[in-house]
Amino acid sequence: MSKPTAIVLLSGGLDSTTCLAIAQGDGFEVIALSFRYGQRHTNELECAAVIANAASVEHLIVDIDLAAFGGSALVDDSIEIPKHESVDELTADSVPVTYVPARNTIFLSFATAVAETRGSHDVFIGVNAVDYSGYPDCRPEFIEAFEAMANLATREAVEGGRLRIRTPLIDLTKAQIILRGLELGVDYSVTLSCYDPTDDGGSCGHCDACLLRARGFADAGISDPTRYSTKP
Amino acid sequence: MSKPTAIVLLSGGLDSTTCLAIAQGDGFEVIALSFRYGQRHTNELECAAVIANAASVEHLIVDIDLAAFGGSALVDDSIEIPKHESVDELTADSVPVTYVPARNTIFLSFATAVAETRGSHDVFIGVNAVDYSGYPDCRPEFIEAFEAMANLATREAVEGGRLRIRTPLIDLTKAQIILRGLELGVDYSVTLSCYDPTDDGGSCGHCDACLLRARGFADAGISDPTRYSTKP
Repeated sequence: MSKPTAIVLLSGGLDSTTCLAIAQGDGFEVIALSFRYGQRHTNELECAAVIANAASVEHLIVDIDLAAFGGSALVDDSIEIPKHESVDELTADSVPVTYVPARNTIFLSFATAVAETRGSHDVFIGVNAVDYSGYPDCRPEFIEAFEAMANLATREAVEGGRLRIRTPLIDLTKAQIILRGLELGVDYSVTLSCYDPTDDGGSCGHCDACLLRARGFADAGISDPTRYSTKP
Repeated sequence: MSKPTAIVLLSGGLDSTTCLAIAQGDGFEVIALSFRYGQRHTNELECAAVIANAASVEHLIVDIDLAAFGGSALVDDSIEIPKHESVDELTADSVPVTYVPARNTIFLSFATAVAETRGSHDVFIGVNAVDYSGYPDCRPEFIEAFEAMANLATREAVEGGRLRIRTPLIDLTKAQIILRGLELGVDYSVTLSCYDPTDDGGSCGHCDACLLRARGFADAGISDPTRYSTKP
């Protein structure tokens, strides 16, 4: 019997790479889906390609027209990426400037379309509600609402199929994610979490993503294989 | 006081053009949003541009990467557009081959992003649940679920804003839509509804969209200004 197919959103970061390994571990044939949406650095797409190749999965890269975006530090060079000395300076009280308008909504919409055209009923997304940057579209209530909507949106749904948006990392700490990934054989040295990497792909060590990642490795008691341009 | 801004999804067809006129009539400053997604014919985008220009509104055209689509007669030349002799042959019992996977989900996701970046709380979409082709993503329950999801997805939502997905045509017959548009001064001669127009932009007269449109004009007792290559 052939394996069921899952679509895995793959950014090239620690979370989505772990998510891909979990989907494979759960017995799915994975199609990895990445987006070129005007990220400041395309290093993360190169990482995604390396990761997909190492995992021997098909890799689709979808171009997203930037017209819809703007107003986010992740796509607009004129907005500075916030840097901090320590992870304790991070708060999830407000939505940070690195939030990209409706990004996960658009990513999941494309994943829903790909799932339908490829006969898949499972979409994996590595959102996390514990060690995260406070983005609204990473919260469990958003994911539940998206799944409910998607199950009214498609031919597949009308014909009785059911799409599941799977979020295996949602309740894990960063340290737990890393330990789970290591069990599954993930090579974290090729993942890139940084919001503001140097031209040669080194991590800045001081953005929200770098600090959350560094704390995760520290808490897990594992040496972080990330190449930092400045040590966090 | 400046007018509130609304995003109007504009395909260049009869319904979305009427929707734009209604949004303007309701006092909104309109930004029209169209998509280039590999439609068989780009005539409809040319119509959309003419309509937006005539209405004196800003017009954004977003390119959608075709990678996600496929399996639809509207984007795949190898699948034939169904033709009928009369509108009575249409049934909404099953989802037709002209359905494009998750299209309205993707369109509304981009509209949500544009609304957020442009400070708008209103998205208009000309879906209709009476004289329609049986697409799952035109049903009121889909729209409600999308709105609920969007109101968990954005910074705007977290900060207490509320996005409304407005569907002023949803309960109208095609004839009622046409009469409403004429009251608002819509020039239907520049709209294009056909799924399979000729190279010079003439309507085929026998696809679902042509037959529903022709019946609408007949029921309204109005002469249809559409240029047909074959009379319906």
